Amino acid sequence: MDFQIPYQGYTGKYPTKMQAFYHAIKDSIISGVLPCGTKLPSSRELAALSGVSRGTVNQVYDMLAAEGYVECRVGRGTFVFYDAQQRPGEPKREDRDDYALSPWGGRVMEQEAQLYSAGSVAYNGKAPRTADFHAYATDLQRFPHEEWNRCLHAQARLLYRQEGQADGRGGLPPTEGDQELREQIAQYLRRARGIAARPEQIIVVNGSMQAITLTAQLLVGEGDKVIVESPGFKGIPRAVRTAGGVPVSVPVDGQGIVPADWDSRLLFVTPGRQFPTGVVLSLERRRQLLEWAYDKGAVIVEDDYDSEFRHRGMPLEPLKALDGRERVIHIGSFTKTLLPSVRIGYAVLPPALAAPFAKAKALFEPLPAGLLEQKTLAAFMASGQYERHLRRMKRIYSRKYESLSRRLADSLSERFSWVKSDAGLHIFGWWRGSTQAYERFRSQCADAGVRWSEIRGEDSEGVRIGVYFHFPHLTEEEMEYGVAVMKRLADS
Amino acid sequence: MDFQIPYQGYTGKYPTKMQAFYHAIKDSIISGVLPCGTKLPSSRELAALSGVSRGTVNQVYDMLAAEGYVECRVGRGTFVFYDAQQRPGEPKREDRDDYALSPWGGRVMEQEAQLYSAGSVAYNGKAPRTADFHAYATDLQRFPHEEWNRCLHAQARLLYRQEGQADGRGGLPPTEGDQELREQIAQYLRRARGIAARPEQIIVVNGSMQAITLTAQLLVGEGDKVIVESPGFKGIPRAVRTAGGVPVSVPVDGQGIVPADWDSRLLFVTPGRQFPTGVVLSLERRRQLLEWAYDKGAVIVEDDYDSEFRHRGMPLEPLKALDGRERVIHIGSFTKTLLPSVRIGYAVLPPALAAPFAKAKALFEPLPAGLLEQKTLAAFMASGQYERHLRRMKRIYSRKYESLSRRLADSLSERFSWVKSDAGLHIFGWWRGSTQAYERFRSQCADAGVRWSEIRGEDSEGVRIGVYFHFPHLTEEEMEYGVAVMKRLADS
Repeated sequence: MDFQIPYQGYTGKYPTKMQAFYHAIKDSIISGVLPCGTKLPSSRELAALSGVSRGTVNQVYDMLAAEGYVECRVGRGTFVFYDAQQRPGEPKREDRDDYALSPWGGRVMEQEAQLYSAGSVAYNGKAPRTADFHAYATDLQRFPHEEWNRCLHAQARLLYRQEGQADGRGGLPPTEGDQELREQIAQYLRRARGIAARPEQIIVVNGSMQAITLTAQLLVGEGDKVIVESPGFKGIPRAVRTAGGVPVSVPVDGQGIVPADWDSRLLFVTPGRQFPTGVVLSLERRRQLLEWAYDKGAVIVEDDYDSEFRHRGMPLEPLKALDGRERVIHIGSFTKTLLPSVRIGYAVLPPALAAPFAKAKALFEPLPAGLLEQKTLAAFMASGQYERHLRRMKRIYSRKYESLSRRLADSLSERFSWVKSDAGLHIFGWWRGSTQAYERFRSQCADAGVRWSEIRGEDSEGVRIGVYFHFPHLTEEEMEYGVAVMKRLADS
Repeated sequence: MDFQIPYQGYTGKYPTKMQAFYHAIKDSIISGVLPCGTKLPSSRELAALSGVSRGTVNQVYDMLAAEGYVECRVGRGTFVFYDAQQRPGEPKREDRDDYALSPWGGRVMEQEAQLYSAGSVAYNGKAPRTADFHAYATDLQRFPHEEWNRCLHAQARLLYRQEGQADGRGGLPPTEGDQELREQIAQYLRRARGIAARPEQIIVVNGSMQAITLTAQLLVGEGDKVIVESPGFKGIPRAVRTAGGVPVSVPVDGQGIVPADWDSRLLFVTPGRQFPTGVVLSLERRRQLLEWAYDKGAVIVEDDYDSEFRHRGMPLEPLKALDGRERVIHIGSFTKTLLPSVRIGYAVLPPALAAPFAKAKALFEPLPAGLLEQKTLAAFMASGQYERHLRRMKRIYSRKYESLSRRLADSLSERFSWVKSDAGLHIFGWWRGSTQAYERFRSQCADAGVRWSEIRGEDSEGVRIGVYFHFPHLTEEEMEYGVAVMKRLADS
């Protein structure tokens, strides 16, 4: 049978045959090598052709069918069901089996599968030791579990026993979030960040992505250009595209985003610490961004994802604190300062946007999710324990940051160009070599139990591979092991 | 100054002057009595004209400004900023101060403010006793708090201390929800509802509204007609309209929705117990709906919001259990069986729609919200305590149901035409008299501390006022008091 898939080229990249096989076929479909309508071999034929088991082929076909890349026609076989020729922005309405997806649904399906996936470096689980710089985690050993649990248990008693009856007539928490938590956040922002916001402007969200997506849905119409950083958090262009907008990537330099007179009314930016490069936007540039927004009547979304952890230097004022004309939406999150499973973030909105944002959120959650944890956090903040915990973690993370920075600079500066930063929970570098050399290096490190996060981005010098190393959850020994492995493989 | 608002007519309806004032102005704006661009009196002038305090007027102006009905032009005064003439479906892009809302955002703003609001009957807090049939609550006295808290504490210990580190490499929970919970739900649905679904088809959501809205976003395009029940849950047309669709209201009769050859590819329906009338859809009609879906290639969303509580008769199989061709999305929720603040629901999807649904959810929540409560519920179900609790609550709620039904039938059958039901947590009736008589009755009852929920809907006899009485959280004494008050006021 005349059927070729470039399976061999994938085996090195993925830990299991099944994954390699899946990606080989999927990429062939997406790239148009296997055009829409192509009949695929039966699982028996393909197993014989490729040397993998028939069970594996069936599993891969099932995955592709579930994702809508292929469809099984009863009694006739399996066919490619994805049109690579189709222009983006014109999603088909009939591409999910025969469920007619809306244009919005079609755009959802065009995005990559997962935001926080197991990552591009698949860890094969065989190395005796590991150093996982990719994991999305905090230092749980140092978390004040007892104090947190005390708040949790007290709040559980109050909430579960009294809810809907505390005032005898069903007082329900609004979609905007627990009132006490909104007040605590307002106080914290005033004290720690210089942001003067009333609790009514603060809406609690289930992690910052909810704030990003709701903002995009509210402000981005079909074809609207939206300015995003490159490299940047990939959730942002995803939210913009799904809303029907067109993300316009703007490169960052050593001082962060370069302000310009963009033809747009919406900008997503990470001034506190550019994601992922870690550079801090200068006050001068902050002022320029605000001038641009005032001039254009634009909105700036300030994604302040981890500026709590500053290792040295003075913090600059957030855009929101500098904004005298209510053009900034400030997004913050507790997922990096507390426990990753506690999905609490917040948006600080211009007063006139608070109601639209709340109505949009209420469409998905008329009553807030995870209210118990919101109340627990409010109590934890009110007792002063949150800021005590932050101060302690700042010291701990600063030590880890200094240690890992030094190790990476000492051992791997030939391979990576490290970007200096004053803050944050990861260290960023640009790969200095070729893509092929990088792929080989990455794969060898993964085999030795060492992995990290990566991004393909532009900076002022063009498209490059960037890597970043999360360290909060790692011990000194793990960081030492990880860097030693990388150095050994880089030198080999 | 020549400025009239019909404030007097509102004072009886609202508990505070401010609220009456707010609604009086807002309704005048919405109805076009105060057209877009009208200059409103200064707060000083309006206070003098109306006899309310200037502070109250300012507060009302602030609320209207925050919601975008009026805008304050610096140095010039307050102006109406809402165009009542504007055709629905053509939302303005410039109507929120000068923040340009997207068409989606514009549609969000066209919806009513809150889904679970304090309700149309405002309770004035002055009555010595109350009977609140409107409150959204369960019988917390009978909830097994100890058992639930034991699960909660055990799960908190496990989750918070091990997360991201249980397997050494940051295994993150998927947006689809806790795996153990999805398995428990699958088992429960098989056992209790006859629905054969694999855990992969089950996606945990933050209450059923999230499932409704994500489904509408995924399947409804601009101008698409979507069949909805009338009367019905008002969240559904809201989600449809926001997605750009056109809800087509279909009246229900004494057996529920009347099947027809609708020109549509999406139907939202409550077969288990029509909301809010409570009638159960016959097997014959269930089959007709499925035939329609097969014929049209349509999707049916089965909103199964409280069929767990069946007081007599045999349960009919859910549409999802009868569906041989994967055209049904089944939505269920734990908010009525557990604690209202625990916002956990689920959608059972056709396999090919599971991935689009998960990707859409991930756009808002790449990691699930309220994971601790998901894990607590999974443990609670796995230990058998959930079904034990359900059995116990069925007995308790059946007794309350029988008692309230009898009281209402005995005392208020002249005013309401009660709809018989075999299941559920509320009792529904149609008002027999005029709208004015109803408004007077409702307002007098509210003054005596008795309120309920209401809906304006169609049934086969035309547009009517429907009322429904939630009882789970009420004691025998409260129900007795409530019905006695209503009877006294109805007879006066």
